[in-house]
Amino acid sequence: MTYTVQIKVMPLKELLDPQGKAIAGGLQNLGLSGIEDVRVGKNITLQINADSSGQAEQIAEEATKKLLANPVMEYFEIAIN
Amino acid sequence: MTYTVQIKVMPLKELLDPQGKAIAGGLQNLGLSGIEDVRVGKNITLQINADSSGQAEQIAEEATKKLLANPVMEYFEIAIN
Repeated sequence: MTYTVQIKVMPLKELLDPQGKAIAGGLQNLGLSGIEDVRVGKNITLQINADSSGQAEQIAEEATKKLLANPVMEYFEIAIN
Repeated sequence: MTYTVQIKVMPLKELLDPQGKAIAGGLQNLGLSGIEDVRVGKNITLQINADSSGQAEQIAEEATKKLLANPVMEYFEIAIN
């Protein structure tokens, strides 16, 4: 069966996010008020062919640790639909 | 009150996603099997100071339409926690 797995990769909360800061400045220049903080990360959708959702999650976790996220700067969350 | 708004910006399903294709190739080279398709988008977290969650959602939608997403190539989903 094919499972759709969503992986969210975000910069660690302790670290500065220059891309987010730039977007926050841009939004302020556009006149949008009330936005206090912006953080930008990746969202990766995998279509995984596996026997069970547990196996699909395992493959997704291995893929994230080996290639998709850098644990020094990022944390990740995996969700299976 | 401060609301946390998650915005997911993904390439339109009809379009090729070269970054996703590159990641799919990389995962195959790493020996991970079963991954049929990869698509990569952005995940943006906003901290919005607003009177209600409806107002926060409205600000987030305006920000997304004005700056964060390109409707020609991307679609977006907004979620409030």
